[in-house]
Amino acid sequence: MITIGIDIGGTSMKAALTEPGGAVLAKTRRPTLADNSRDATIEQLHSCIEELTAKAAESGHTVDGIGIGVPGTIDLERGVVYHPPNLPQWDEVPLADIMRSRWPVDVRIDNDANCAALGEAHFGAGRDYDNFIGLTLGTGVGSGIILANRIYHGERGFAGEFGHITIDYNGPRCNCGNLGCVEAYIGIRYMMRDAIPILQNESSSPLHQRARNNPESLSPEDLSRAASDGDAVSAGVLRTAGERLGVAIASAANLLDITTFIIGGGISAAGDVLFDGIRGSATSRALRVHRARLTILPASLGNDAGMLGAASLLL
Amino acid sequence: MITIGIDIGGTSMKAALTEPGGAVLAKTRRPTLADNSRDATIEQLHSCIEELTAKAAESGHTVDGIGIGVPGTIDLERGVVYHPPNLPQWDEVPLADIMRSRWPVDVRIDNDANCAALGEAHFGAGRDYDNFIGLTLGTGVGSGIILANRIYHGERGFAGEFGHITIDYNGPRCNCGNLGCVEAYIGIRYMMRDAIPILQNESSSPLHQRARNNPESLSPEDLSRAASDGDAVSAGVLRTAGERLGVAIASAANLLDITTFIIGGGISAAGDVLFDGIRGSATSRALRVHRARLTILPASLGNDAGMLGAASLLL
Repeated sequence: MITIGIDIGGTSMKAALTEPGGAVLAKTRRPTLADNSRDATIEQLHSCIEELTAKAAESGHTVDGIGIGVPGTIDLERGVVYHPPNLPQWDEVPLADIMRSRWPVDVRIDNDANCAALGEAHFGAGRDYDNFIGLTLGTGVGSGIILANRIYHGERGFAGEFGHITIDYNGPRCNCGNLGCVEAYIGIRYMMRDAIPILQNESSSPLHQRARNNPESLSPEDLSRAASDGDAVSAGVLRTAGERLGVAIASAANLLDITTFIIGGGISAAGDVLFDGIRGSATSRALRVHRARLTILPASLGNDAGMLGAASLLL
Repeated sequence: MITIGIDIGGTSMKAALTEPGGAVLAKTRRPTLADNSRDATIEQLHSCIEELTAKAAESGHTVDGIGIGVPGTIDLERGVVYHPPNLPQWDEVPLADIMRSRWPVDVRIDNDANCAALGEAHFGAGRDYDNFIGLTLGTGVGSGIILANRIYHGERGFAGEFGHITIDYNGPRCNCGNLGCVEAYIGIRYMMRDAIPILQNESSSPLHQRARNNPESLSPEDLSRAASDGDAVSAGVLRTAGERLGVAIASAANLLDITTFIIGGGISAAGDVLFDGIRGSATSRALRVHRARLTILPASLGNDAGMLGAASLLL
């Protein structure tokens, strides 16, 4: 089965033509044109598919299905996308029907975080695990729950909002309205909110002056670079962020008896210091039966996870 | 299919002979003799089964299977029970094999909290819900996750440790070693630990003098009685306990897209004031998509949930 997988991001969409084993026969990408119009974005999807369908034909293949990962809430049965925050021109879009009317093949749509987890399950760091939670650390905390090698969707397709596990019921206000969601600590903006006063007070950090003069310019990547160059202050901030993520991981492991967590997304590039924080906290907090088994791994597919997972929606 | 379901508690075991629809043909119970010896408890099981098998024979039935709910960790595949905290004489007990060697029928074993949730799923407050989490509030917080009308066991059968969802990562120490588990607020002992200083300071409460002179005598039932008699202090303690449980409920709803929670166990008898606290907190904290749908119900089978659920393990 030859499928096309597309991952629609806020700024660009990535598409791959894949064989069942996950071999990528061809790749392409387009700007999402998120601020333009709904139809402009949909035309970009068609354009990706056209290009990849032509590539398939060149090598004597036909495309059997199209899978699309969309940031936002999705009615899986009807293939309708609701108000994706990063596609402001989209309200309620019957994306599966729109695609099927142009491409007479099987079309599946799912949430982008679910697709990323499914990609890791089939082709990445999750290949050896039947059950895991895939986390994507970025502006928010995306996540997909993989049970028996399939996406767990919950009652209505909304499952996997790992970022909105509370870790302190008196904690800082999260975007969602709740207090103390783990996302309200390790979402990029929140993490930097915590980091900047620390850097402003610690003159030993190479980021000290920037934190004082131009704090908006600082990103988790700066912390990560400074930490690998030996800055203990930046390392401390990242370790603390990891420890907080570990709290929610322990809660999820205890509730679900899932002991594998695969972590990707921009912040996860911070590497060892972040992962040490996550592992230390999750392991010490999880129930005894889970401690020796807890496995916290970096994702291995990077930005390709979403499109490869989208292609696997057809499998 | 005529089955026997047995719920082994710390002080007594309850057994029922049931028809597939859940009709109870006969019931019996025995002291568990938990402090006596492993075999003494197992003899009590045999004795229950003998009595109910005889009852079945009287009405022309044969028993097709036996389901047993055990407090503690279970290897479901092998039917082995590990170190149940309330059965101190049990270490690693191959209970399924032991029972099968005496009774040549299908034998299934599961955790008692899972059985209670399954009982509610088949015959109680969960009948109309395919997916819910059943909580039993007592010394600890037992729970069973029902997905598509079946117990969700997780990777190794340890799923459903809802009590060990963290609600404050700097919170009080839980029995399990972690800080701020929801059980460390609403387990009976922990709840009373929080209640007593409040009652000791509030002379308006009818429990004030007892809290000063004989605090160990106070139980959640006392709070509940005082609250229904109009004591605002006791009502406040119960409402706060409910609000804390609501934090963990919102986390679980967000992670799993499960919106029904069925709550039983001794403390749940506190009724409206507790449930108002739970509902208020869970509803305000869950993601917007869940708020209107969140359904938090009292369990309806009381102490019979476990044995009826155990009987349904065979279905």
